[in-house]
Amino acid sequence: MSTVKTKFINDPEQITAELLEGYVLCYPDKVKLAGENIVVRANPKAEDKVAIVTLGGSGHEPALSGFVGEGMLDCSVVGDIFAAPGAQRLFQALQLMKREAGILLVVLNHSGDVMSANMACQLAERAGINVKQLVTHDDISAGIGAPAADRRGLAGCVPLFKVLGAAAEEGKSLDELLEIGKRFTDKVATLAVATGVCTHPQNNALISDLPKGIMEIGMGQHGEGGGGQKPLVSADETATEMVDLLCQQLKPAAGSKLMLIINGTGATTQMEHNIIFRKAYRELEARGLQVVSSRIQEILTVQEQAGFQMLIAVLDDDHILYLNDKKADAPYWTTIGK
Amino acid sequence: MSTVKTKFINDPEQITAELLEGYVLCYPDKVKLAGENIVVRANPKAEDKVAIVTLGGSGHEPALSGFVGEGMLDCSVVGDIFAAPGAQRLFQALQLMKREAGILLVVLNHSGDVMSANMACQLAERAGINVKQLVTHDDISAGIGAPAADRRGLAGCVPLFKVLGAAAEEGKSLDELLEIGKRFTDKVATLAVATGVCTHPQNNALISDLPKGIMEIGMGQHGEGGGGQKPLVSADETATEMVDLLCQQLKPAAGSKLMLIINGTGATTQMEHNIIFRKAYRELEARGLQVVSSRIQEILTVQEQAGFQMLIAVLDDDHILYLNDKKADAPYWTTIGK
Repeated sequence: MSTVKTKFINDPEQITAELLEGYVLCYPDKVKLAGENIVVRANPKAEDKVAIVTLGGSGHEPALSGFVGEGMLDCSVVGDIFAAPGAQRLFQALQLMKREAGILLVVLNHSGDVMSANMACQLAERAGINVKQLVTHDDISAGIGAPAADRRGLAGCVPLFKVLGAAAEEGKSLDELLEIGKRFTDKVATLAVATGVCTHPQNNALISDLPKGIMEIGMGQHGEGGGGQKPLVSADETATEMVDLLCQQLKPAAGSKLMLIINGTGATTQMEHNIIFRKAYRELEARGLQVVSSRIQEILTVQEQAGFQMLIAVLDDDHILYLNDKKADAPYWTTIGK
Repeated sequence: MSTVKTKFINDPEQITAELLEGYVLCYPDKVKLAGENIVVRANPKAEDKVAIVTLGGSGHEPALSGFVGEGMLDCSVVGDIFAAPGAQRLFQALQLMKREAGILLVVLNHSGDVMSANMACQLAERAGINVKQLVTHDDISAGIGAPAADRRGLAGCVPLFKVLGAAAEEGKSLDELLEIGKRFTDKVATLAVATGVCTHPQNNALISDLPKGIMEIGMGQHGEGGGGQKPLVSADETATEMVDLLCQQLKPAAGSKLMLIINGTGATTQMEHNIIFRKAYRELEARGLQVVSSRIQEILTVQEQAGFQMLIAVLDDDHILYLNDKKADAPYWTTIGK
């Protein structure tokens, strides 16, 4: 553990509160705080529509609160750095969002988040709140075809917020949203690669161990080990290997329409992400697959960890409509709409 | 110079071409290539409106080509890593954009860009192309009140693209745009701080020298030295010092309406940017100043250099209208509009 200070923070215990305060001050027309570490829309959705809620630790900015806004999330419940918020805070948010139409709670498959969600949903049920859970598990690093329970939630939650948010604005019911979301999560796969370490901002400890010039495919969002380390290969070789693994998982039929996202996790340049995207797109094209929705952006980071996540989703027509044509107005995902 | 490969690239000589290919493949409904390293809108603006064009080296993604789109830039002419495009390529772009309404060429004050712009404008004049230049010089690291010629162009060009793009869509004339833009550039000031080094992707050389735990306020976009190195201080102390220097330059009257942007330059987390933004906002508030337009985003990076740029602009009412209320639909700046 290093004692050299390298980050612009103040009191390490106040990081989450301060970063959320800065965030809502920056985007006051879109988001506001509705309680300690609970971010909601500045202009709430009509009460007769289903609310989309999520939860997760801070330290992954802009995720997850960056996607609160019209056509995406209604509420993000934030824990401390890399830590799930407690069940009580989540229950408090569910009470705030309570409505007859119901609440869809998106949970990334990480043990702390799942535990908080289950406990809060039990409390909510007793309080007469209509809430259903949708768990994401897009990480394929546990192995091709591994059971959903073994697969963590990575950046796949973000386009899911876009799909669900757009469908909820249209007035879809809770059961319809659950079906639309489940169909999306069943067909999205993400793979991470890391090439550099990051430090935990509260204690300066390295959260992983990766020598310079070494890459690790499959590293998780908190430094969990992946598929082994090897010397860095070229952008094209990396993209080809990752596309191949993701296609092994998804098995897209020829002619399938896909989403392709390169999500920067921290210190890797967008220059590199563009070069990776280029080869991934060309590889998919060569397999007879068509990219119809795409994005190169830091949507879910791991502090300053160098590397990125590659996300591929096989899309239905209604997912394409919700992703590309419907308006979204969150601070870190804006779609003008058609 | 290290021989350890740390970046996802292929042939170092093909970086710019490949990153631009990936970029236009990702956002085909917004941007396309119209020649070697010339990025234009996928759906061009009407010919009777002034075209907004800029130029600059690559390696600063998403700048500058990330802001080509409806309501922002019509064309971005790209050089190699950190290098101005040649006058011939810029002249080629001016020929493509030629129209009776004219072209406004935004030039960041860096010697290579200025030289290319001057030469290309001479060629354009001889070819009967109506083009005028607007040079940006928002960096205050040369000292408070230093002559404009001594001040480099930093991230201030990006909100300028938004202002000019919106005004051009409204049908403002070339002379009107020059006046609107000049009034904006006269009232924008930017200060950079670096806390970590980056490498040049073509030769792996460090472009600056900054030990771990040390910060340098005023470092330029290519590692140019600033106001001296010192041990990293807290987020609040850093924000306070930077706001004070920027206000010394701008001297905003009490009650002024401001834009505040924190632009990440590479490896520093958005978590930190939010915390910096929070204190900068509060400091401005304490001075009786009102932030009415703001953004926390990596808009102009310096490879993976840790640090950020703080930008403050004193806004007129029409600038506020153009920034906040008018539609923009570029890949890295989208405003729904009112």
